[in-house]
Amino acid sequence: MTARRVVAFGGGHGLSASLRALRHCAPELDLDITAVVTVGDDGGSSGRLRAERGGLPPGDLRQALVALAGDHPATRRSAGLFQHRFAAAPADAPGFAAPAAGDPDGGAGRAAARADGLAGHAVGNLVLCGLMELLGDPVAALEHAGAMLGAVGRVLPMSREPVGIEAQVRGADPAVPDEVRTVRGQHQVAVTTGRVESLRLSPTAPAACAEALAAIGAADWLIFGPGSWYTSVLPHLLVPQLADAIVSSPARRLVTLNLAAEKETLGLSVADHLAALHWYLPELKVDLVLADAKAVGDPEPVERAAESLGARLVLAPVAVVDGTPRHDPAALGAALVPVLGADR
Amino acid sequence: MTARRVVAFGGGHGLSASLRALRHCAPELDLDITAVVTVGDDGGSSGRLRAERGGLPPGDLRQALVALAGDHPATRRSAGLFQHRFAAAPADAPGFAAPAAGDPDGGAGRAAARADGLAGHAVGNLVLCGLMELLGDPVAALEHAGAMLGAVGRVLPMSREPVGIEAQVRGADPAVPDEVRTVRGQHQVAVTTGRVESLRLSPTAPAACAEALAAIGAADWLIFGPGSWYTSVLPHLLVPQLADAIVSSPARRLVTLNLAAEKETLGLSVADHLAALHWYLPELKVDLVLADAKAVGDPEPVERAAESLGARLVLAPVAVVDGTPRHDPAALGAALVPVLGADR
Repeated sequence: MTARRVVAFGGGHGLSASLRALRHCAPELDLDITAVVTVGDDGGSSGRLRAERGGLPPGDLRQALVALAGDHPATRRSAGLFQHRFAAAPADAPGFAAPAAGDPDGGAGRAAARADGLAGHAVGNLVLCGLMELLGDPVAALEHAGAMLGAVGRVLPMSREPVGIEAQVRGADPAVPDEVRTVRGQHQVAVTTGRVESLRLSPTAPAACAEALAAIGAADWLIFGPGSWYTSVLPHLLVPQLADAIVSSPARRLVTLNLAAEKETLGLSVADHLAALHWYLPELKVDLVLADAKAVGDPEPVERAAESLGARLVLAPVAVVDGTPRHDPAALGAALVPVLGADR
Repeated sequence: MTARRVVAFGGGHGLSASLRALRHCAPELDLDITAVVTVGDDGGSSGRLRAERGGLPPGDLRQALVALAGDHPATRRSAGLFQHRFAAAPADAPGFAAPAAGDPDGGAGRAAARADGLAGHAVGNLVLCGLMELLGDPVAALEHAGAMLGAVGRVLPMSREPVGIEAQVRGADPAVPDEVRTVRGQHQVAVTTGRVESLRLSPTAPAACAEALAAIGAADWLIFGPGSWYTSVLPHLLVPQLADAIVSSPARRLVTLNLAAEKETLGLSVADHLAALHWYLPELKVDLVLADAKAVGDPEPVERAAESLGARLVLAPVAVVDGTPRHDPAALGAALVPVLGADR
């Protein structure tokens, strides 16, 4: 049996869940996993590094690498290192001047802390930033970082250049619910409580990563979601070269739906999520839509939305059992085995 | 043949040269290499991390790890990553406001750059800092970092706590050449152009790293130098537990002399370097002193200084051939083979 080549699209926690699930079925199905990751983040540690150093925002790439990190104790420890986030510098570090006696903070006895240049950065973000500077190419940097983590798959950026994400949002300001405003930046789009009416990238047609295009062309399966729909799942469809490669690939296509709406998708039904895929890439045909029965509720509108993409709806219990809207990697993996393993 | 256990003491470039030389003879002699590294640095990237985060200054530890990094291309690349130093953030990064038209710097056309929190930090320093925070112990952190680099030996700190280095210096201020002042901090001591009259640690008796004590007790050879004499070589002798372990170890002892005086040792002859070892640890007996014939000049006073430590002087060409006062790792390694390989 030759390996089944799977390309998973996304960013952040959703892509991590997808990759962890794929790992669960990798031994059984002999999967060859490639993650293609959004490069639009402009918040937090990634946003600072991107603004200050000009390379790709590393956070989503790091999360994908860590999700694929090998099981050896040493590579698990390296993955822990990548995820370790520098806290504000401790107040009792030698270089920190103790608050003066009259200082109200000192008197209140609460733990003083201060932000140095490292505070808030994940170590893996700094490693990726250093590797991109050192090797001069994000794909080479990710290959080396993957080797450091013994990764059981490959992580690629959707583009070698960072992109901006912009949205027309109705009611971005709750005081003016009918006004449509342009909201700029992945972070701002992700946290808006208004309704996203349209989405675009800046630049509008960034060059796709060539290695990602090659992986899509050679894939047996393309997997979209779960994840933040506007800021992690749809952006790939807005890169013209990626969209072309996705549409023309001989691979089968699977959409894994979210378990709950997020801030950016408040008001969007499960069926609306599928409609958004069609809206932004009308040529997209999908083979299967995988969803959690409880999250779907009445399956009928979702079935119809899936059919309009050419897809069959598969319901399976894929959420964690504690009721929080998170995918359980083992359950999602178990649901993926018959899907990805089925003959055409 | 059982492995010869070698413990090399020092810090910075001198210790790196020693470790690289030991690697050259490691296959022939089946060496088991342990580096015991000073933890007094308070300058540059290490000094900032120490002041802001309170752990061990990582720079000298990083240099030793890199010197021992494995020869595989992937581990060589990781070593390059550890050494990669973040430059000032590029001026054309998106977050950088261009200078206003009337700005004199803008008019001068010189490359604008700015310091963010990462500027000046070596990636390996940040990795070590993160590992020490994550694992809570510098020895565990160094073990993991060594595994990341495929290190062919082990790196230990001389103490789990950072130490201060203080010196009484005559003529620290060139305007008052006879005045003796206390100079505080490894960096200030290293760059003083006055004459160091006495040296101490702060605290004066830091606890030695237990793993270093065990390595010294089990060693076949203890190697001191080359390196900055006051700030990298002598500090180990000032840690009472290390001094006791060094004196009572059944190992033979080798001193590798420097090729030229540094700022901190201006005015100190080659023989004076050996006398300083005796001054700070009178019980120290040495078996061999290795020096470069050209650097020594007239060997007679050096031979006598070696004899006063109980040592025989061995002269060998160990400098790089371009005339700069640097040890050539291959030449130093070749000189070490008969020394370390000799039966007692």
